[in-house]
Amino acid sequence: MSYQDLVKYMNKRQALNGALTLFEWDQETTAPHKSIDKTTTYIGVLSKELFETITDENVIKLLHELENEDLTLSQKSVVKHWLKDIERLEQIPADEYQAHSELLIKAQHVWSEAKLTNNYQAFEPYLKQIFENEKRFASYRQVDHKPLYDILLDDYEPGFTTKELDAFFEQLRNEIVPLLKAIQQSNYKIDKSYNYKEYPIVKQKLFNKYIAQYIGFDYNCGIIKESEHPFTTNLHNCDVRITTHYYKNNLESALFSTIHESGHATYELNIANDLSLTPIGTGTSMGMHESQSRFYENMIGKNPLFWKNLYPKLQNVFLNNLEDISFDRFMDGINKVEPILIRTEADELTYPLHIMIRYEIEKKIFHEDIDYDELPRLWNEKYQEYLGITPKSDSEGILQDIHWASGSIAYFPSYAIGSAVAAQIYAYMKEHTHLESWIENGQFNMIKAYLGEHIHQYGAIYNTNELLIKLTGEAFNPKYYITYLKDKYIKIYHLKR
Amino acid sequence: MSYQDLVKYMNKRQALNGALTLFEWDQETTAPHKSIDKTTTYIGVLSKELFETITDENVIKLLHELENEDLTLSQKSVVKHWLKDIERLEQIPADEYQAHSELLIKAQHVWSEAKLTNNYQAFEPYLKQIFENEKRFASYRQVDHKPLYDILLDDYEPGFTTKELDAFFEQLRNEIVPLLKAIQQSNYKIDKSYNYKEYPIVKQKLFNKYIAQYIGFDYNCGIIKESEHPFTTNLHNCDVRITTHYYKNNLESALFSTIHESGHATYELNIANDLSLTPIGTGTSMGMHESQSRFYENMIGKNPLFWKNLYPKLQNVFLNNLEDISFDRFMDGINKVEPILIRTEADELTYPLHIMIRYEIEKKIFHEDIDYDELPRLWNEKYQEYLGITPKSDSEGILQDIHWASGSIAYFPSYAIGSAVAAQIYAYMKEHTHLESWIENGQFNMIKAYLGEHIHQYGAIYNTNELLIKLTGEAFNPKYYITYLKDKYIKIYHLKR
Repeated sequence: MSYQDLVKYMNKRQALNGALTLFEWDQETTAPHKSIDKTTTYIGVLSKELFETITDENVIKLLHELENEDLTLSQKSVVKHWLKDIERLEQIPADEYQAHSELLIKAQHVWSEAKLTNNYQAFEPYLKQIFENEKRFASYRQVDHKPLYDILLDDYEPGFTTKELDAFFEQLRNEIVPLLKAIQQSNYKIDKSYNYKEYPIVKQKLFNKYIAQYIGFDYNCGIIKESEHPFTTNLHNCDVRITTHYYKNNLESALFSTIHESGHATYELNIANDLSLTPIGTGTSMGMHESQSRFYENMIGKNPLFWKNLYPKLQNVFLNNLEDISFDRFMDGINKVEPILIRTEADELTYPLHIMIRYEIEKKIFHEDIDYDELPRLWNEKYQEYLGITPKSDSEGILQDIHWASGSIAYFPSYAIGSAVAAQIYAYMKEHTHLESWIENGQFNMIKAYLGEHIHQYGAIYNTNELLIKLTGEAFNPKYYITYLKDKYIKIYHLKR
Repeated sequence: MSYQDLVKYMNKRQALNGALTLFEWDQETTAPHKSIDKTTTYIGVLSKELFETITDENVIKLLHELENEDLTLSQKSVVKHWLKDIERLEQIPADEYQAHSELLIKAQHVWSEAKLTNNYQAFEPYLKQIFENEKRFASYRQVDHKPLYDILLDDYEPGFTTKELDAFFEQLRNEIVPLLKAIQQSNYKIDKSYNYKEYPIVKQKLFNKYIAQYIGFDYNCGIIKESEHPFTTNLHNCDVRITTHYYKNNLESALFSTIHESGHATYELNIANDLSLTPIGTGTSMGMHESQSRFYENMIGKNPLFWKNLYPKLQNVFLNNLEDISFDRFMDGINKVEPILIRTEADELTYPLHIMIRYEIEKKIFHEDIDYDELPRLWNEKYQEYLGITPKSDSEGILQDIHWASGSIAYFPSYAIGSAVAAQIYAYMKEHTHLESWIENGQFNMIKAYLGEHIHQYGAIYNTNELLIKLTGEAFNPKYYITYLKDKYIKIYHLKR
């Protein structure tokens, strides 16, 4: 028995995974509307094949033998991750897994229709089935009375627990809510009405393609298309795909989506070649992935240093709308704090409060006896409580995100973890590299290379905390995020400390 | 043992086949340029899985048992076709099959680059390897000294042989070459310079999308995109995809590609639901498929009855270019006979001569000892001999078609067979249905329903000759094609009989 025996199974695993990724991409961006019913059959079969390949008896035997062999670092890591996948999957009967995969495909279509027609009732049975399946799957894997929610959380963010997150969100609540109040009471008002003028989509597309390339997106190994909800996916490190969504009357929306997704893409494009076609050839966790997209979107993309050279170019493309908007006013505009209902359009400061709401609802569904009819009301109450606003419809309330429809439960916290990790990395790089000069001078090859060397190339070999310790000498610490937000917004809104 | 036992394998077969179709589509229309190297790994693995699923020992046993069971017509047909596939595939070792699949993916990229840079040398080793593999694969399957070429021919056009095709092409040569000479010597000259004015691509796209729908393309179950070489593909009967290629200075090119591919698409959209997710849920042969695309492209699309209502609409879209072009002049223009080098742009009359050249070269490679260096010269000589013109570069010569790069050998004859079958069906329908009135009045739902009822719905249950006999009472007979071409062009060019 040698590692080479595993490679045969690994190739099959990766090929099936690649096919499923492509079907998903195709459904989101290309496939005809009514194709889904029959295509679901294919996806169900391929998912089952993938499941059976990962949990094949011969593989299990092989992996346990390989645990004691003298392997390279990446080989060891493949074995470790595969065993963890098996531990997660083999508790779930193959037919339940296949049924769940098929459910998710249909649920995403139903969700999309329900959101369009503001029809929570239509989506509710799917939502319920998905949560109940996920709860049951988690219960199959439960050991030592570990909270069910923590079991899923660990899939997306290995090492993180509800206990740790509760503390993190409490800190955010204690520091950010007063800051938000202070901003709302301040006399300093930002007018960003210019952002909602008409920006022709053809021109937006050109500028977005330009800016993606400017910050390092590589069109030899990547493409940009459009979809309802922007996302990044990849087949390997030389096929990385991002989408954005253009709105005629909102310049920022597509712009910061593109920068955000380009951050995700940079991670995947930077994965080491010898890891790319293996199960560890991808970002190590959702939180670490999100840290990279947030790093580009917020720390870089909303930074005056970044726009110094770029803003005149943007003005030039949309001269009618931006000619009279000064640099300072534009910087104020993209950093304006304003509680709104839609998470993906939220400003940097209120964003984590949107996450907190979803986190609290997910925990409630998992650990209390919940009536799914009541969820829209619960959602709306929390928006009133934390952000002071109430959705007028479920489309802009509980139906706004695709995540639950796609079975991504306990995924949302990663967004907040990601923002905090991004701030931690930014604080370190600001002190120990020429980061600010790189941003100012558009030397994105340097930033890409630095992140590549210290984070991206490793794929999933190290987890979030291991990477943070390797790079900064310190594990996850939300204080950098709190400090970053406070410093930034006190300055923008001319507040007293 | 029952048919239900086969369904499990069939679902896997169809899912893998669907994934491979999607990867191929994606490479042609979407994937980033450099993705191919790593993606080839996935395609190779999935091809091997497909091969092993089709030729699985349990399946073979099952199929032989099912041969004696009391099955429905379509079940019987699945069993019959599957056994034929096994007979074809099990002679080829799985690793050779996988290597060949990977070769074909790379070859298509090399071909694309070689065509762009007029570099036959770069493509030659791939061309040679593909032909040599196909020869070897055919030799594995040879029985009773059947000519190797006939073995491949039978894959694309069951029941047709070199002997039959030689006779068909001889008839074409004897009748069409003199007709072509008479046209070239006639005093009746057609000026279609209007076709090469500037036609904005945005407007072309809109009109092409309109015309596809007009003749029955269903956007609920289909999409139109762009690719270098137009083609049709499908995942099932509710996911049918066509591509076209727009040229700013050629109105006809995209227009007739779209009509042609819509003909292919109509076939696939019309497959019966209970066949759609089975191996026989697709057009019965390449020739029959091509008969449907040619039926729409030529018999309908170049027919004055068709354009009577549509031409004013076309004029209106391109008023600057077409305002002064009369209906009769437009009809003459789209039917103008003019020998050119590019098959896909050839007029209806000279088209089969392009096919004859490829057919003769393929036969030569298969049955004589050929030097691949010599192929471009041979190609050019034949163009001079049959069409009176010589390519100035290999890009417009031997490198023009993707077919050989994609391993489609003995495929070309299907184009000529298709044209002849189309003429045969047209002659029958003209006499026995209201076809001409349907065309004139744009009642394409009637045409779609008629072809659906008599041909399309059956998928691959019946072969070309069986379908022709069922519909017209007569097997393949090229005389209808010859008569059709002679009648049509004698009239257009005002020739004496």
